[in-house]
Amino acid sequence: MKAAVIMGSKSDSPIVEKTVSILQEFGVDVEVRIISAHRTPMLLGKFLESIDEKGIEVVIAAAGKAAHLAGVLASGTTVPVIGLPIKSGTMDGIDSLLSTVQMPTGIPVATVAIDGAENAGLLAVQILSLKYEILRDKMKKYRDRMREELERQDKEFQSL
Amino acid sequence: MKAAVIMGSKSDSPIVEKTVSILQEFGVDVEVRIISAHRTPMLLGKFLESIDEKGIEVVIAAAGKAAHLAGVLASGTTVPVIGLPIKSGTMDGIDSLLSTVQMPTGIPVATVAIDGAENAGLLAVQILSLKYEILRDKMKKYRDRMREELERQDKEFQSL
Amino acid sequence: MKAAVIMGSKSDSPIVEKTVSILQEFGVDVEVRIISAHRTPMLLGKFLESIDEKGIEVVIAAAGKAAHLAGVLASGTTVPVIGLPIKSGTMDGIDSLLSTVQMPTGIPVATVAIDGAENAGLLAVQILSLKYEILRDKMKKYRDRMREELERQDKEFQSL
Amino acid sequence: MKAAVIMGSKSDSPIVEKTVSILQEFGVDVEVRIISAHRTPMLLGKFLESIDEKGIEVVIAAAGKAAHLAGVLASGTTVPVIGLPIKSGTMDGIDSLLSTVQMPTGIPVATVAIDGAENAGLLAVQILSLKYEILRDKMKKYRDRMREELERQDKEFQSL
Amino acid sequence: MKAAVIMGSKSDSPIVEKTVSILQEFGVDVEVRIISAHRTPMLLGKFLESIDEKGIEVVIAAAGKAAHLAGVLASGTTVPVIGLPIKSGTMDGIDSLLSTVQMPTGIPVATVAIDGAENAGLLAVQILSLKYEILRDKMKKYRDRMREELERQDKEFQSL
Amino acid sequence: MKAAVIMGSKSDSPIVEKTVSILQEFGVDVEVRIISAHRTPMLLGKFLESIDEKGIEVVIAAAGKAAHLAGVLASGTTVPVIGLPIKSGTMDGIDSLLSTVQMPTGIPVATVAIDGAENAGLLAVQILSLKYEILRDKMKKYRDRMREELERQDKEFQSL
Amino acid sequence: MKAAVIMGSKSDSPIVEKTVSILQEFGVDVEVRIISAHRTPMLLGKFLESIDEKGIEVVIAAAGKAAHLAGVLASGTTVPVIGLPIKSGTMDGIDSLLSTVQMPTGIPVATVAIDGAENAGLLAVQILSLKYEILRDKMKKYRDRMREELERQDKEFQSL
Amino acid sequence: MKAAVIMGSKSDSPIVEKTVSILQEFGVDVEVRIISAHRTPMLLGKFLESIDEKGIEVVIAAAGKAAHLAGVLASGTTVPVIGLPIKSGTMDGIDSLLSTVQMPTGIPVATVAIDGAENAGLLAVQILSLKYEILRDKMKKYRDRMREELERQDKEFQSL
Repeated sequence: MKAAVIMGSKSDSPIVEKTVSILQEFGVDVEVRIISAHRTPMLLGKFLESIDEKGIEVVIAAAGKAAHLAGVLASGTTVPVIGLPIKSGTMDGIDSLLSTVQMPTGIPVATVAIDGAENAGLLAVQILSLKYEILRDKMKKYRDRMREELERQDKEFQSL
Repeated sequence: MKAAVIMGSKSDSPIVEKTVSILQEFGVDVEVRIISAHRTPMLLGKFLESIDEKGIEVVIAAAGKAAHLAGVLASGTTVPVIGLPIKSGTMDGIDSLLSTVQMPTGIPVATVAIDGAENAGLLAVQILSLKYEILRDKMKKYRDRMREELERQDKEFQSL
Repeated sequence: MKAAVIMGSKSDSPIVEKTVSILQEFGVDVEVRIISAHRTPMLLGKFLESIDEKGIEVVIAAAGKAAHLAGVLASGTTVPVIGLPIKSGTMDGIDSLLSTVQMPTGIPVATVAIDGAENAGLLAVQILSLKYEILRDKMKKYRDRMREELERQDKEFQSL
Repeated sequence: MKAAVIMGSKSDSPIVEKTVSILQEFGVDVEVRIISAHRTPMLLGKFLESIDEKGIEVVIAAAGKAAHLAGVLASGTTVPVIGLPIKSGTMDGIDSLLSTVQMPTGIPVATVAIDGAENAGLLAVQILSLKYEILRDKMKKYRDRMREELERQDKEFQSL
Repeated sequence: MKAAVIMGSKSDSPIVEKTVSILQEFGVDVEVRIISAHRTPMLLGKFLESIDEKGIEVVIAAAGKAAHLAGVLASGTTVPVIGLPIKSGTMDGIDSLLSTVQMPTGIPVATVAIDGAENAGLLAVQILSLKYEILRDKMKKYRDRMREELERQDKEFQSL
Repeated sequence: MKAAVIMGSKSDSPIVEKTVSILQEFGVDVEVRIISAHRTPMLLGKFLESIDEKGIEVVIAAAGKAAHLAGVLASGTTVPVIGLPIKSGTMDGIDSLLSTVQMPTGIPVATVAIDGAENAGLLAVQILSLKYEILRDKMKKYRDRMREELERQDKEFQSL
Repeated sequence: MKAAVIMGSKSDSPIVEKTVSILQEFGVDVEVRIISAHRTPMLLGKFLESIDEKGIEVVIAAAGKAAHLAGVLASGTTVPVIGLPIKSGTMDGIDSLLSTVQMPTGIPVATVAIDGAENAGLLAVQILSLKYEILRDKMKKYRDRMREELERQDKEFQSL
Repeated sequence: MKAAVIMGSKSDSPIVEKTVSILQEFGVDVEVRIISAHRTPMLLGKFLESIDEKGIEVVIAAAGKAAHLAGVLASGTTVPVIGLPIKSGTMDGIDSLLSTVQMPTGIPVATVAIDGAENAGLLAVQILSLKYEILRDKMKKYRDRMREELERQDKEFQSL
């Protein structure tokens, strides 16, 4: 099972790393790339052509501002594309969100929250778990751990 | 292969029907339901418990205003949940979009455009196609038809 | 007289503490909890079931981003629920506000300002004072003190 | 048990009527008034002075644009004030919402959704039910009817 | 010639000081006050009653969040009221701006830019200059100095 | 006493007429013009030069979209300029509002609500009443009539 | 001299026609196309390759929602690309505007107003007039006619 | 070949410098000026008159808040005007963007991203390259370098 994580700019890497960590934690093979829809369109084209051959089953695209990356990737593959809108220096991320989510009829992008890097990874795992049952169990355990951690915090808080 | 389409209110049905049409066009079995996160939480609980047994592999949740439906469904299953924000009488759908997409870390919702009913269906098909190869072929044909239709329109336009 | 203050994440506690202080200052018994609508839904269910037995008469729910906590609590009790939208790292709190206030017909949430922690506490006191006359007097004194403090500041300013 | 419903302009009456209907359905005594914070401030002052004597226990204030009505009423009474933001011809109601909900520390307004007239009434009933147990039972029945209606719609939909 | 500068909270004073400086630079007599529309409404009432007697000819009201101060002052006097929206911790000042400018028909507020403290003062001077010709000359000189300073900067920049 | 009402486009005239009516009702002499900051800048220049000679004491500028009219007029005169933002086909008037109100330090525009045509006229009258006492009395009567009309509506409503 | 006008969807044609009219009025040769960045990416690729050979010197791209068309075209040519954001059924065009204008460093798009079809054409003419002097004269005449028409309207209005 | 870069305030110079650098890197002659549409309108008039004589072929206008500079320049010349909206202390630049881009029919401004200083310069080069073929080659090389740098970063990242 394999996912690709594409960021539009090197400056997105601190956020994107959290996505990669989640995928690796679940044992998903990850290809991480810096590909810009606008500045390296040919690299993007080559990547799209390689998806089937490499066995990539889900793509995560992280980009900011007029974030076309997820949409352009989605138009070139039928593999599900997850859009991760990155907050940039202006507009508080609303430009990235709208550019990613408001796709025209025909080419959907599965958009997560602004800077929602972990959730992009978790959504990829949930999608992959349709095919790979082992991920379903791991996800249930992940949720259990998350739940237990919050229950622990809640108890701790009450005993203060 | 099976999907569930849940709407938060009967008034969402004219939009949701387009999602159902897409799924049926691709031969996906669909369960369509009216379940409100706020007004019928027990029905929602029962639905969540039935997901595995019914073999539902992807859930689409359509809701407007403070649209909690997708998030609450996502918190109760590890099956991928697609959020379809519905535009209501005020706020031009921005409330529905933000309530659906801005999920906290741990529980992602795969959000599509405001009133993006067809795309919700198409995204579900793309997710299911990870497991069901036949959908991959159908999706490629769907895209080809879409492409050909636009190419035809473009040609027609040039010959005017 | 008893109130519950629920936060969706431990990171909300510095803000929520101001709500708790207000309630304690007025002599209201407070149960403070960390319960996530999405990550610990079962804990949330248990809390809802305990409301009557514990004699909780008003609930304050603090959450950020796609803030479903107040709405989900409100759908499970007929006790008044006050929503306190918390500003998170993106969107300046507008996502939290809209997710909390734009509730569908049938299940209201009494929403206060973004990060309006003190006001959430004061509103709870005003609601409780319907039944507990002593709170009415305390609230009048609280307002008098607030008024006197501002009048003092105004005088000081004029004598500069 | 008594509530007051104040609207800032006669043009708000078609929306406000839904609030009044809810209150009457629950057997709450209602005083309905047209009082503008800006155009009839003296009428507003007289109303505030009459609250105790008339036994008004909750106030609902409906206003649009720079909606100061709820805030100004809240500053003149310790009775809980529910703010109902009305959508006007421009700005899709966001001006009314922010003017109503973003109250400074000290004077809270319990804000409901833009044009959320029924919810304003239901919230008033929930607040009154702290003191009047009969309302608690009626509210449970109201919710049951709402739930049953939605369950019926859901069933009907599935049998199509 | 006399102006009053009212701020809703002591925390607004660093911004309001710039308004006061402008007024003093033009030789306008200034009364500076801390009066809250919500927390010291009686102080506000007394101030309104004193306007004629003190000879106040223009009022500047600075407030943040649900900024009702300018509107409430405007409803109690026929003297022109200038609204100065103050940016607070959330919402980037848009709540203050809309609460100040979107006044209902009948009671206008002359609104300036968010945190536009100098402009609030300059607008007051322009209004007063209808009656006091000396201010017209001073304003022309002020503009000339401003223009000369910018022309000097422009020249300096070109010679770099 | 004389005011000028400038609209940026003939299509603004149905709204601007309400401003003119208010001014005429108060006996203010009005010059109404169609002058575009962008399309007839020379006409604008000539108008600015004529202000003193014609005895114009306040200018009202109505414009939509990137509404520069009020700001450009304000930069060419020291007479107070009132900005009336007009809602156009997109953006719900927020573009007009921000382009009018967010003026840089040095050149204020006294901005009223989006499409707030009557208030633009009333503000002009309030400004003129600094110099012309007769307007002060008329304004008090205008407010009295407005107040009485609302009080009448309130009474009528209560007797229903 | 030649321009290309590309629309992302046939539904944009009523707006785009105004752009084409302007270009034809100025004697500019126009190629009008329906090409979608997402649905016919190969058509887009072929168009980009044909730009030099056909002698296209400026490209106008009209698209709505997550409007990637202008950006994707701009990344594939060094000819200036004008972005025309089209208002769609939701979000009042703000999604189209931000998706078009907020381009990352390296690939600019010359963006005009939402639905600003005529201005897209006029900007293309102004750009072409750098090279084709005849357009400069025509543009001056166009502006003169526009100015004269407004001056006529202004005069007519004054004589009413 | 010559461009002019006009900023509305000296405080815009750190951003504007990036525009100037780009232009100089491409060998374009640049005139840099500080001219305010509101504070030095006569300087602006003189600049407009000098455009032809100085051989300026494209103008870049950088301004914040109610950013009228680009629009006012565009109304006084038929040379293409590029608008660069500058983010100021409030509103995250949305006021500058809307004031620059939402121009009325007749006078277009070629708007780039908020604080998009490099892109303003690159767009100017692309426009100039219609006439000056050497710029076309330089731009292709610039894009190649940009592409190569990103490809290098992508490779580096993969080898980590």
